[in-house]
Amino acid sequence: MHVILPDGKQLELQQGATALDAAKAIGPRLAQDALAATANGELVDLMTPLPDGANITLITKKNPADAAPLFRHSLGHVMSMAVGEFYKTKGYGPDAIKRGVGPYIENGWYQDFDLPEPLREEDLPEIEKIMRDIIGRGLDFSRREVSKADALAQFPHDPYKAELIEGIPGGEAVTLYGQGDYVDLCAGPHFPSTGKLPQSFKLMSTSGAYWRGNEKNPILQRVYGVAFATQKELDEYLHLLEEAKRRDHRRIGREMELFFNSEVVGPGLPLWLPGGATIRRELERYIVDKEIADGYQHVYTPVLAKSELYKISGHWDHYQEDMFPVMKLDDQEELVLRPMNCPHHIQVYAYKPHSYRELPIKIAEMGMMHRYEQSGQLTGLSRVRAMTLNDAHIFCRPDQIQREFKAVVKLIQDAYEVLGFKNYSYRLSLRDPGDAEKYFQDDEMWNHAEAELRQALKDMNLEFYESPGDAAFYGPKLDVQVRSALGKDETISTVQLDFLLPQKFDLEYVAEDGSRQRPVMIHRGVISTAERMTAFLIEQYAGNFPLWLAPRQVMIIPIADRHNDYAWELRDELHRAGLRAEVDDSSNRMQAKVRTAEISRIPVMLIVGDKEQEAREVATRERTPEGHKERKGVKFDDLKAELLERYRSRR
Amino acid sequence: MHVILPDGKQLELQQGATALDAAKAIGPRLAQDALAATANGELVDLMTPLPDGANITLITKKNPADAAPLFRHSLGHVMSMAVGEFYKTKGYGPDAIKRGVGPYIENGWYQDFDLPEPLREEDLPEIEKIMRDIIGRGLDFSRREVSKADALAQFPHDPYKAELIEGIPGGEAVTLYGQGDYVDLCAGPHFPSTGKLPQSFKLMSTSGAYWRGNEKNPILQRVYGVAFATQKELDEYLHLLEEAKRRDHRRIGREMELFFNSEVVGPGLPLWLPGGATIRRELERYIVDKEIADGYQHVYTPVLAKSELYKISGHWDHYQEDMFPVMKLDDQEELVLRPMNCPHHIQVYAYKPHSYRELPIKIAEMGMMHRYEQSGQLTGLSRVRAMTLNDAHIFCRPDQIQREFKAVVKLIQDAYEVLGFKNYSYRLSLRDPGDAEKYFQDDEMWNHAEAELRQALKDMNLEFYESPGDAAFYGPKLDVQVRSALGKDETISTVQLDFLLPQKFDLEYVAEDGSRQRPVMIHRGVISTAERMTAFLIEQYAGNFPLWLAPRQVMIIPIADRHNDYAWELRDELHRAGLRAEVDDSSNRMQAKVRTAEISRIPVMLIVGDKEQEAREVATRERTPEGHKERKGVKFDDLKAELLERYRSRR
Repeated sequence: MHVILPDGKQLELQQGATALDAAKAIGPRLAQDALAATANGELVDLMTPLPDGANITLITKKNPADAAPLFRHSLGHVMSMAVGEFYKTKGYGPDAIKRGVGPYIENGWYQDFDLPEPLREEDLPEIEKIMRDIIGRGLDFSRREVSKADALAQFPHDPYKAELIEGIPGGEAVTLYGQGDYVDLCAGPHFPSTGKLPQSFKLMSTSGAYWRGNEKNPILQRVYGVAFATQKELDEYLHLLEEAKRRDHRRIGREMELFFNSEVVGPGLPLWLPGGATIRRELERYIVDKEIADGYQHVYTPVLAKSELYKISGHWDHYQEDMFPVMKLDDQEELVLRPMNCPHHIQVYAYKPHSYRELPIKIAEMGMMHRYEQSGQLTGLSRVRAMTLNDAHIFCRPDQIQREFKAVVKLIQDAYEVLGFKNYSYRLSLRDPGDAEKYFQDDEMWNHAEAELRQALKDMNLEFYESPGDAAFYGPKLDVQVRSALGKDETISTVQLDFLLPQKFDLEYVAEDGSRQRPVMIHRGVISTAERMTAFLIEQYAGNFPLWLAPRQVMIIPIADRHNDYAWELRDELHRAGLRAEVDDSSNRMQAKVRTAEISRIPVMLIVGDKEQEAREVATRERTPEGHKERKGVKFDDLKAELLERYRSRR
Repeated sequence: MHVILPDGKQLELQQGATALDAAKAIGPRLAQDALAATANGELVDLMTPLPDGANITLITKKNPADAAPLFRHSLGHVMSMAVGEFYKTKGYGPDAIKRGVGPYIENGWYQDFDLPEPLREEDLPEIEKIMRDIIGRGLDFSRREVSKADALAQFPHDPYKAELIEGIPGGEAVTLYGQGDYVDLCAGPHFPSTGKLPQSFKLMSTSGAYWRGNEKNPILQRVYGVAFATQKELDEYLHLLEEAKRRDHRRIGREMELFFNSEVVGPGLPLWLPGGATIRRELERYIVDKEIADGYQHVYTPVLAKSELYKISGHWDHYQEDMFPVMKLDDQEELVLRPMNCPHHIQVYAYKPHSYRELPIKIAEMGMMHRYEQSGQLTGLSRVRAMTLNDAHIFCRPDQIQREFKAVVKLIQDAYEVLGFKNYSYRLSLRDPGDAEKYFQDDEMWNHAEAELRQALKDMNLEFYESPGDAAFYGPKLDVQVRSALGKDETISTVQLDFLLPQKFDLEYVAEDGSRQRPVMIHRGVISTAERMTAFLIEQYAGNFPLWLAPRQVMIIPIADRHNDYAWELRDELHRAGLRAEVDDSSNRMQAKVRTAEISRIPVMLIVGDKEQEAREVATRERTPEGHKERKGVKFDDLKAELLERYRSRR
């Protein structure tokens, strides 16, 4: 047999040769350094016979991350072995421990156990210690192909293994992998030796899991671990997990009392508490005023319509499974909650005839929509059934597309400035010309529309990347991808060309020559839905909102009871000016009040004592990105003006 | 026989005596002046035999309005006779005209005709003229009781009369009334003579009406008239009609492009055009900011919920016919559009435990609701299926009821000041203690709650009236009745006590002594729904909105083309300041532009020519209640500041 090396050379090997044999044939140093290989692009271990004629590459300790699934899988076996040794110290023999499945997963692995007594979270560091010891022992992983009978004989006291072995189809090989005195039923692949496994792993948690996922079966204990090629990567991952937990919008939403779900209202229908409603109102007023200043015309349209509307628009045929069930009224009428706002805005456009001179007409709305999602999919504010979209539809002439497109990009940039988004990229989402199912078929339309958007982006000197297959059914779009605090790119804004809906609704304008022409529609969203943007911002700021968005802006802290009246006087003055100010006139000590305000994520504290009261001054303590900043002897009137200016300018 | 006079005296009369006989028996002067009478409270004419022993009063020309139904009915006969004479002048004999029914109605009468050629609106003045002539002839009305056969013989060529006569039950008298040569089948009652009928009448319009209201029958021509005892009353009525037409919110909504209905969206689901949306947004922002300043906490809650929520609240049992049909989701969930916001706000209250110190908690929302109304009932913005209510629920301790109630009344007064409502009254709506069906039964609760509200109103020195039977099911309320521009009282604001829902949802707070107590709920609405308030304000202002509500605030009118740039410069500056300003740079002449802006109901015009441009000034033309006010040589910067101040202060 032979295999082909990355440089194209053929390597002749004996029948049944493994990647280790191939490495040895190239050189002893390589055989020493090899950790795993790929054969025809698939990860394989060093112990498994290679297919004849395979293209192979060897993975060495220079790039161990390439073999991550293998070391994660092997660490799973090491953990499984360590659990056995752990229970041995507690006096249990090897037969007392039974094992379900133990695959590698993203970032790590898990293993299911049926244990004589449950493993506690506190036991995990001990298991980790034993694992490190096993790694230190440098045990080679071995691989054996056996008969089913032999396999069954290997696990005489483990009903789960027996069931798994019985389930292996007749023709398939049954393989056992082992290291030291530990053997497991496993299809592999694995590392060559425990000694070559990275120490950069961590056991994370345990949970219950039904055997084979069926709740009629016994419940097993599942232990999770994560591993990376380097300690740095592990640390980064653990940090990100911590961050995700710290920034989790559901947790912060609870702590700051921003929103909640009510069992009797229903899943996916969050209720916005006063604090969350304040954030939403600030966002809505900002974008509505901004859009009006930019020439948009805001409307209010109903959240439902006759199903007929969606039959014309095509949503009925293409989008019905995301829609709520229809409501049949007594007199033959049939209404349905809208899943999108475009058909309503089209009705607004079609309300009266338009001349070319009136275009573009830009219809905008904070438009409430309802989409039917399975209740299992719903979470916090980020996956909901009712949402209010910062939506607009621009009806323009074909010669206005580029100008309007650029104006929207400019609006998005302005909004991101205010929202504090600095890390974002432009994705030009094109159709996949080969996918006749997903895309409306009209080559000329697509080529023309895609070229228009590409040109506009080039004119603006924006860096962008093209992504075929990400366009909408009826046209190409620009997606603005914002990097979240957890490093994920999320599509926040979209600008999308649409030649199809104007046709379906037979929209027109009267051109300069008196002829009737079809307008183009641009669907665009700048700040996404109120729900999603709020979830994103909570995560972005970890709840530490800038002044204009903070549900609670100012806490006034009297040092002693005799300063309470002065504190309330200042509070009333700030309140009248429209600022959200409170007084902590509890009997707590000043430092405790400061701590409470900090935990409550209130950006500005005003501390008032004798000196301040006499001079109508305040001492301030403000949150900054680095920590906090303190000022003393600030004239209250100056501070009020400063806060108001910061609030109004949203800086 | 005898009758009893108002002073209690008995008057002996001959069997079959009429009211005229009674009048004659009292004195010839009375017999001369008498127009009609009442017998046992019912209006009767002077020609019909009185029942033995009846209490009678005579109606004379001193108070003809008391006999309005009679003169309206008699004028109907006079009109019917006049129509006959009108067609005679066109060459048609009496048999060519057939007649359906002709009753008196509110303010007037109508008569259905089957005519040889249709009556045109232009013919009505001619008919009126003939009517006045017939009145001048002083023809006595006569009354005859006849057999069915005689009656049928009277109208040999009129199939409608024949059908009516056939339909009269066997035992009933068939009566004919006549004046001059005109005779009609009629149950009466009538005036004694055409000469005594008022001249203060008017023929209004004609329309088509199916014979007996059945669209399978021939269509007849219906002619409407109105009549009042005095010309003054007629004039007032006609003026009110003109006003109603002039102020009709549907008409103004069309003219000013405020809202519309789309066939394919559905009835009762208006779409707010940019102009109407501007009014709504201004109203919403005003009341939300006002409420926040007053200590309300605004929330956003979903427009639907599981039907379970309404089973707990009781709406499911008592209000279901006003609710939309449920939406059954795949996984056994059942959602329904909410008809009221209270259960959602209760969920917000119940989100966490509350201490007596936190109360009152005032949860507010511009809450969208949906109510199922028959499509025939729907009209404009005033009767809709989707509405957004300025809603709030105050959760308070029993000892806080009066204070909170007074605070709401104060808020209503403040809001009315801003909205320009001066003519309103307070109605304390109480239960009807005898109506066990309509009212939740708990005497102690009702007595206590009613006393609380009454006391609060007295403390505030407000004039109010009590209205038993107008309370809600679960508690008494204050209704604030605002007099509309057409003189009708409409309930705009309500404040309602509720002890029942807190009980149904088992709401609690922890009292000072640590015990768990039940809060009281106050439901309150200040500016009603966005839909109804906008309809009311359109009517109130006849579309001539004050600056802060005007969809289009400022029109800048350049006198010549060379002033266009200056006009646009001013416009941009006003626009940046947040004012809704436009430029009329059309090629029309200045006077035409002024006229266009006036028709468009734009409150402020800025006219700019050479002089203004040089000095950065404007000439202004502003709408006032009396007409308009003009100023010349106003510094633009001063004017901008003045307009902004007026806009922001909503004066």
